Amino acid sequence: MNDAIIELHNEATPATAVSPLALRLAKIGRGFYKRGWNLGTSGNFSAVVNRDPLQLLITASGLDKGALSAESFLHLDESGNVIAGHGRPSAESSLHLAIVKRRKAQAVLHTHTVWSAILSEAYGDSGGFFIEGFEMLKGLEGVNTHQHHEWLPIIENSQDYDALSQQVEMMLQQQPNIHGFLLRRHGLYTWGVDVEAAKRHVEIFEFLFEVLGRTHH
Amino acid sequence: MNDAIIELHNEATPATAVSPLALRLAKIGRGFYKRGWNLGTSGNFSAVVNRDPLQLLITASGLDKGALSAESFLHLDESGNVIAGHGRPSAESSLHLAIVKRRKAQAVLHTHTVWSAILSEAYGDSGGFFIEGFEMLKGLEGVNTHQHHEWLPIIENSQDYDALSQQVEMMLQQQPNIHGFLLRRHGLYTWGVDVEAAKRHVEIFEFLFEVLGRTHH
Amino acid sequence: MNDAIIELHNEATPATAVSPLALRLAKIGRGFYKRGWNLGTSGNFSAVVNRDPLQLLITASGLDKGALSAESFLHLDESGNVIAGHGRPSAESSLHLAIVKRRKAQAVLHTHTVWSAILSEAYGDSGGFFIEGFEMLKGLEGVNTHQHHEWLPIIENSQDYDALSQQVEMMLQQQPNIHGFLLRRHGLYTWGVDVEAAKRHVEIFEFLFEVLGRTHH
Amino acid sequence: MNDAIIELHNEATPATAVSPLALRLAKIGRGFYKRGWNLGTSGNFSAVVNRDPLQLLITASGLDKGALSAESFLHLDESGNVIAGHGRPSAESSLHLAIVKRRKAQAVLHTHTVWSAILSEAYGDSGGFFIEGFEMLKGLEGVNTHQHHEWLPIIENSQDYDALSQQVEMMLQQQPNIHGFLLRRHGLYTWGVDVEAAKRHVEIFEFLFEVLGRTHH
Repeated sequence: MNDAIIELHNEATPATAVSPLALRLAKIGRGFYKRGWNLGTSGNFSAVVNRDPLQLLITASGLDKGALSAESFLHLDESGNVIAGHGRPSAESSLHLAIVKRRKAQAVLHTHTVWSAILSEAYGDSGGFFIEGFEMLKGLEGVNTHQHHEWLPIIENSQDYDALSQQVEMMLQQQPNIHGFLLRRHGLYTWGVDVEAAKRHVEIFEFLFEVLGRTHH
Repeated sequence: MNDAIIELHNEATPATAVSPLALRLAKIGRGFYKRGWNLGTSGNFSAVVNRDPLQLLITASGLDKGALSAESFLHLDESGNVIAGHGRPSAESSLHLAIVKRRKAQAVLHTHTVWSAILSEAYGDSGGFFIEGFEMLKGLEGVNTHQHHEWLPIIENSQDYDALSQQVEMMLQQQPNIHGFLLRRHGLYTWGVDVEAAKRHVEIFEFLFEVLGRTHH
Repeated sequence: MNDAIIELHNEATPATAVSPLALRLAKIGRGFYKRGWNLGTSGNFSAVVNRDPLQLLITASGLDKGALSAESFLHLDESGNVIAGHGRPSAESSLHLAIVKRRKAQAVLHTHTVWSAILSEAYGDSGGFFIEGFEMLKGLEGVNTHQHHEWLPIIENSQDYDALSQQVEMMLQQQPNIHGFLLRRHGLYTWGVDVEAAKRHVEIFEFLFEVLGRTHH
Repeated sequence: MNDAIIELHNEATPATAVSPLALRLAKIGRGFYKRGWNLGTSGNFSAVVNRDPLQLLITASGLDKGALSAESFLHLDESGNVIAGHGRPSAESSLHLAIVKRRKAQAVLHTHTVWSAILSEAYGDSGGFFIEGFEMLKGLEGVNTHQHHEWLPIIENSQDYDALSQQVEMMLQQQPNIHGFLLRRHGLYTWGVDVEAAKRHVEIFEFLFEVLGRTHH
């Protein structure tokens, strides 16, 4: 598949145009937009299309997430260079690459939501918070009981995305059990073994953020 | 109808594919998903297709409720064995079976919502709460006045679904007038004499949960 | 038009099937349902189809407002008798008739919403509340400035709809400038010179209820 | 393009009927209406179609924003006279004209939302408020860091739109870096270098208003 993509790129035809993964990510993104989870062109969605060498399908920067189509995606190599597709990669691509390298993640979804912004500030000085006791937690990969304690780290936001992606890589190594993290006053990053798992994780976290946000704030 | 289903099953064709009941439950489920009432593959929807012997149509485990179709349902016998359809039954099927056995319910709907999670925790130690004085209560089967006192029991959540379903059966016997119950930090179970009545009960409870939640919390 | 309707009725064909008014009310009702303003089969929508003698088109009782069609409506005479259409009239039809008799209203819309339920209880003992100073008030018929003081009366809810409709008639006579009223822990009634004006009034009131509800409660 | 419009107008054909700009504004408006940002016929949307002489496409007064189409727009000249299209211009057209004259704005969007109404009152006596530290701010034109301090002025609402538009013009000259402003208990005005930028600004401000509103109020 990697070869085919490069070939198509050489012919200046965007390889992403016919990708079922891109179609699926686009639909998920439009659904999130309807819920107000990616307003104002915020957020990014990505999926691994090849592991060795690593290739990532990711939303181009600055797009209206309510109008995503298969053409809205770029192919990046493992260094973040564009190898197919039209548009500019987001500065946050390095975070997506860091996650798929450090986790068995095939998809990474990043949202900007009201409740994640509120909680990331409320618990920002503590560096994170636990979510405990909710049945909904069982939807997170590998969690089998509502008695699970999910730690959600919060990282200070920064415009130095190289430093930020290194910090994220380190955190992912040190905390192998987390399913996502927040950037302070910024948003949620979560991932999954496939696109559907990542979508499920977004919905679970956003649901639980709203419950916690309405309970304590 | 029971015979027909078994026959189809023997031919390895899912009997559920053409069921109007499954189509209707799928549409209701997609509508709930739009409202955020079954995010992250949470919740289950079921309907009785045969009474003697008992057969239940129920959502297979782990499905995206925003993408439900007639193929998303299993047929279970009264012991919870799959007799038609593709997929794994939810561990919560035993609760659905307990309800349709103890009530004249033809449909059982289970949602995971923000306000039910909040109220189930706020009133969890009291074992439940009353909803009183709202015109909306008149939409509950057999209720004729807003002055009705609806008791909504809250049961501690558990991963031992056998014990949980026995507890639910006992509660349904002891409290013949309730129209639903909450599992703590988990969600709502309600039912109806048909699918439309069960849908109405979900909407009424969720509406009232939001009113109570915004008033007191 | 009155004659034609009766004729159709004699032939047992529902006159409402082809009514543009019914189609428009049905669409408005489905829109309100999407916003959660008429969950659980709650609410009623009506429009005057003839003034002398009075004939009212009104939603039949107990319908899912998300599935309204032109067939969902009855024709009532001025006494509330069904003269065309299938189904049972709501007990609240008497309120609709009271309003169109006492006001130059051609349409009456009744919603059950979270914020109207909350405000109707918060201000119930005061018998109503003022809404003042919002630009949005200018959308109410005859209001030309945000400095308008809109009084919203609250009436105790009751299952004696004859008494309730008499109370409403008296209130409408005594308070000629109001654009709507609340039934306590029940919902909003508003109306307009045509269906569009009534729809506009619902949206304006519900918007302002949410602003007030979030500000003070 | 200006000539063509006038010619079509002379033939009594609304020039707006085929305008892609009008189609795009109509779709944006219907989307905002779904979110509850322009209920009750509130709000106005405009775009510059010609700079010299200035011509503005703008929603006619009193329209249901959920039913906007290309026919819903008027063409105004720089003095606010209707040069094409059916309907009455809004009294607020003078504000739109003031903005496009004082800014390099090609589009102006005006919404009435719950959170903008609440914040405009909460901070009304201070004349405005800062929004700081949110990643979402980077979506505002020319903002490159979440550490940006965005000042959002609040102007007292008035029915004297001539005075109001002069006040707005003065404010736009004195505060060249703002991306929008609030009218107290009224709503948001924002703009952009094109229609998409203006849409993005609305979404960013409304998102941030909700975060601030839920945090402090």
